[in-house]
Amino acid sequence: MNAQHVWNGGGRRIYIQEVGPRDGLQMEKVFVSTADKIAMVNALSAAGMAKVEVTAFVSPTAIPALADAQEVLRGIERPSGTVMTCLVPNVKGAERAMAAGADELNLVMSVSETHNLCNLRMLRTQSFAALQEVIAVAQRGGVAINVSLSCSFGCPMEGDVPADEVLAWVQSFVDAGVQGITLCDTTGMAHPTQVHALVTAFKARWPGTTLTLHFHDTRAMALPNALAAIAAGADRFDASVGGLGGCPYAPGASGNACTEELVHALQLMGYDTGVDLTALTRVAASLPALIGHDIPSAIVKAGPVQQLHPRPASFEQVRTRAQERMQAQQQQG
Amino acid sequence: MNAQHVWNGGGRRIYIQEVGPRDGLQMEKVFVSTADKIAMVNALSAAGMAKVEVTAFVSPTAIPALADAQEVLRGIERPSGTVMTCLVPNVKGAERAMAAGADELNLVMSVSETHNLCNLRMLRTQSFAALQEVIAVAQRGGVAINVSLSCSFGCPMEGDVPADEVLAWVQSFVDAGVQGITLCDTTGMAHPTQVHALVTAFKARWPGTTLTLHFHDTRAMALPNALAAIAAGADRFDASVGGLGGCPYAPGASGNACTEELVHALQLMGYDTGVDLTALTRVAASLPALIGHDIPSAIVKAGPVQQLHPRPASFEQVRTRAQERMQAQQQQG
Repeated sequence: MNAQHVWNGGGRRIYIQEVGPRDGLQMEKVFVSTADKIAMVNALSAAGMAKVEVTAFVSPTAIPALADAQEVLRGIERPSGTVMTCLVPNVKGAERAMAAGADELNLVMSVSETHNLCNLRMLRTQSFAALQEVIAVAQRGGVAINVSLSCSFGCPMEGDVPADEVLAWVQSFVDAGVQGITLCDTTGMAHPTQVHALVTAFKARWPGTTLTLHFHDTRAMALPNALAAIAAGADRFDASVGGLGGCPYAPGASGNACTEELVHALQLMGYDTGVDLTALTRVAASLPALIGHDIPSAIVKAGPVQQLHPRPASFEQVRTRAQERMQAQQQQG
Repeated sequence: MNAQHVWNGGGRRIYIQEVGPRDGLQMEKVFVSTADKIAMVNALSAAGMAKVEVTAFVSPTAIPALADAQEVLRGIERPSGTVMTCLVPNVKGAERAMAAGADELNLVMSVSETHNLCNLRMLRTQSFAALQEVIAVAQRGGVAINVSLSCSFGCPMEGDVPADEVLAWVQSFVDAGVQGITLCDTTGMAHPTQVHALVTAFKARWPGTTLTLHFHDTRAMALPNALAAIAAGADRFDASVGGLGGCPYAPGASGNACTEELVHALQLMGYDTGVDLTALTRVAASLPALIGHDIPSAIVKAGPVQQLHPRPASFEQVRTRAQERMQAQQQQG
């Protein structure tokens, strides 16, 4: 694959997976009403998302913001083009999500021992054992499984996580029979060289496993990382409308890759995202009213490139004067 | 050039040119004292910048923030590794900048007729004629000349500016004998595919002319655009410490490419920027006290990737409990 290929989309399909309703809203202090969540998911699927992470079937004590998981999943429209996935931490969550009609279960563990303990209170081997039970339940129910590996590009407490360790965890889950793996840059530590190398290694080893990249824009590298991943053969990205989300273990960090920033850039580059940018940006623009604070989205702030600005009121006067000066000079010359 | 080449710096030199003292500060409502400006430029050159745009020799009525151009340029240290450039709009400004010891004069016009009229109150042909006089003065004085072409990737009022028109203006200035050309994405409209194509065309046509790329992060594409430019053979970028700057004709727009975001990413990718990121970030962190408002820099907010976070206070307790649970399970099994 040459550089020209990366820098020219040429109509190639890139799959955009919206995680805002789960990964974004779970961080918010405000409880967004069930009706507003359903409207948000419906608007996102209507805008053309390949997948939406609708909610999480977790303890309402742990994450009160998503206590209405069942109502939301049962209440949304189910257009055929959008896979509806739900995060589940355990067998109980998996059973609830399956009963409420999830297309896919998204399982999470961290490849960093420290981060896994902080986030899930388990050693990695404990998480893996617990998730194997969830996988067995999902397989019996005929529901697809994706595993999201947190800190695949580094841990905010440990630092580097060796690529071989990340790939060993991928192998364990591929052996367990999951359909998809998401390499998550949970706190925005990934850089393009690292992304290119890890995606290249993944694609060479597991060509039949669906790979998603999940970037955060903490250090302004979400889009560069997405392009590096595409250069290495990836075609599927998580992103969060408005740039919602973040991580409690990385203070001051900005949120997930912003869906409309990613779609805007990819469309300009000639990629086919299948997403209606105007409809997507409308969802982003509606978020501050729902969550009570501003969002980082550059597209909501500045508008897409195609949205031009009016000339200043004085423009015609300025032009006329310039033209008169030029005519006067020409007559002198 | 293949994609691998772009995604692995491999120690290649990238030249970082700091424009914050001019392009950044000229937008600020607060007058930053002459002593603070001198300290800022000194800190930036000490941090390893290949070039610093020190100030502009313009009418103090038009840009009061830079009314102390002469004092700043005369007051700064002159380390041999850093070219000190100054923006000049006309012959009078060029003479003042040369008298005060500028290494290089930076001339500006827009390739968009509408933007040029708004910004400089001249038709493009009038600007070109005026700049030819400035070039003649600089050439007699033996000072290098760079020309910055605003709106090279689009105009916020006109929209697209055809690449052929941009390249025709480059040809006119190359014919006039300038050493360097900067293609400016004045309001953040450039996208990587466009950048790759325009830089490729430039490098093929003028291999002996120094090319700088000047991006804005208005729509979150400054870093992706820089990588696209590197992929096409560019090695020289303008950027603004802290992400200072913007454009009065694009409301809501964020600032210039942020120097520390660019340096941070390029260093992680294995490029040699010659910049001390810690020293640079210290300058960025000092800006809010000077200008009275927050700055967009993700590196000031989140710290570089290498700066790890402490584990939560409860960590050892959590780990001990997890280990005890595992031992208990193993004994049961």
